[in-house]
Amino acid sequence: MQKKINQITIIGTGLIGSSLGLALKRKKISNSIVGIDKSKVNLSNAIKNQSIDESRLKIDFRIQESDIIFLCTPVSLIDPITRKLIPFIKKNTIITDVGSVKNCFDEETIKKSKNFFHIVPGHPIAGTEHSGSKFAEEDLFKNKWCIITPLNNNKKVINIICNIWKKIGMKISIMSVHEHDKIMSITSHLPHLIAFTIVGTAFNIDIKKKKELINFSAGGFRDFTRIGSSDSKMWTDIFIKNKKFILKTLDSFFDDIDILRKCIISNDYQKIYNLLKRTKEIRKKILIQEETKRKN
Amino acid sequence: MQKKINQITIIGTGLIGSSLGLALKRKKISNSIVGIDKSKVNLSNAIKNQSIDESRLKIDFRIQESDIIFLCTPVSLIDPITRKLIPFIKKNTIITDVGSVKNCFDEETIKKSKNFFHIVPGHPIAGTEHSGSKFAEEDLFKNKWCIITPLNNNKKVINIICNIWKKIGMKISIMSVHEHDKIMSITSHLPHLIAFTIVGTAFNIDIKKKKELINFSAGGFRDFTRIGSSDSKMWTDIFIKNKKFILKTLDSFFDDIDILRKCIISNDYQKIYNLLKRTKEIRKKILIQEETKRKN
Repeated sequence: MQKKINQITIIGTGLIGSSLGLALKRKKISNSIVGIDKSKVNLSNAIKNQSIDESRLKIDFRIQESDIIFLCTPVSLIDPITRKLIPFIKKNTIITDVGSVKNCFDEETIKKSKNFFHIVPGHPIAGTEHSGSKFAEEDLFKNKWCIITPLNNNKKVINIICNIWKKIGMKISIMSVHEHDKIMSITSHLPHLIAFTIVGTAFNIDIKKKKELINFSAGGFRDFTRIGSSDSKMWTDIFIKNKKFILKTLDSFFDDIDILRKCIISNDYQKIYNLLKRTKEIRKKILIQEETKRKN
Repeated sequence: MQKKINQITIIGTGLIGSSLGLALKRKKISNSIVGIDKSKVNLSNAIKNQSIDESRLKIDFRIQESDIIFLCTPVSLIDPITRKLIPFIKKNTIITDVGSVKNCFDEETIKKSKNFFHIVPGHPIAGTEHSGSKFAEEDLFKNKWCIITPLNNNKKVINIICNIWKKIGMKISIMSVHEHDKIMSITSHLPHLIAFTIVGTAFNIDIKKKKELINFSAGGFRDFTRIGSSDSKMWTDIFIKNKKFILKTLDSFFDDIDILRKCIISNDYQKIYNLLKRTKEIRKKILIQEETKRKN
């Protein structure tokens, strides 16, 4: 059994960071939890809802008390903050993160970590459309998937991080950074890109009943507005950081939708029907798979 | 108060038709309800769950007993079936429908109706991803919107149809055929077009963990597969019937997503952020509006 950790620091006490704090505390994983954020509001809410024990506005020498540091910031800050941490951390500190893009540590930073500290990139697939520690949820991670994308073969260190996520209820999947970023570009980043766009498209269209648009949106649009109201800063970062895969996936999507578009133009009933039916069959397979997994 | 209707016929006893039957019966709106369908399975399930009182496999002289006929078929069949009904119906029969495209009656059919029978196009915005009468739900229409797109100014007849939908729990909005088809192209048809496409895109992409794709799809993709598993025949019809507005809306969407795409390519952080933030503000406005409405 793993011994109790003395101190964990969470940098970025937003929705994910403070929900993580709550879950860690419930499972008594660490003797104390420190929260660092430049937002006083986030910190004071995190103290208020007891997701952290101590709040700090800056990174300094005190962080050497921490065995593990969770970076729960927008992805563009993960590497700069890691570099900022290096002068202050003790040897063998584990730095991990929760970013939605796993290509978020620079090569140079990874090089610097060797023989000094550990980097274990992680991505708990959890969240809501809200942001900020005031929306923290103890059960946010429960029964969800956490993807770990190890940079080396240090199983002991990787296991420490995996075990923490497991203890707070997550299922673990290990894959490469490359594989993660490709998968997320289609399952999460493209849907968000589309959702953010379509809400704008809807409100640019010339219709009289614009104000009532949402009333008539039971079939699809309402879900899109929900997805499309996620944190703007976080998603700007993701779109830029995972640019390579997002642009490729977007191109494939454009190609596919253009096939459907051309069929509509030429009234090709049979071909449209076949394309649509295929989606249904894919979904059916997925559902059967999920069912089988649950039973096993 | 409206007197009880003697007989209503529902043509197409699928999910919508049979749910309508159940709701009409609960509210005792008609003395008897006849279901017509070419699918024996749909008919026998509809009889079994008591959404209709009598089942028929074809349209014939017996339909002259009905005061109102609801066409609950895929949109491409609405006009052909109406024409097929003309030799059998009695004077002043009201023919109405539930199609997702309201430009579904031919000019010639509308002409033929004058001084003989009434056409009142309608669209209850309700449904699930399931099809068939075995999924019938008595409360499917409750608190949802029904759009009526009158072809003339015959208020008495329009009110009869509006009142039926109101009695089974729907809120009514009256607008033109044109306005309806434009609004639906963005709030429902485009989201479905995208959802049907993206599921295919995902499964064309070269990834090792394809089987596990769905596990990592909490953020967006899972909702898309649900929307994208709706009835293929129904949606093929919709895409072809509302071609004019769908293609226009798709073009606007392409233009808008291309703006975002170009910003990603050029790393234009500020512009992406502004575009994303705008969506959030639109959604906020929508929510405030809904809240105000609920309170009033």
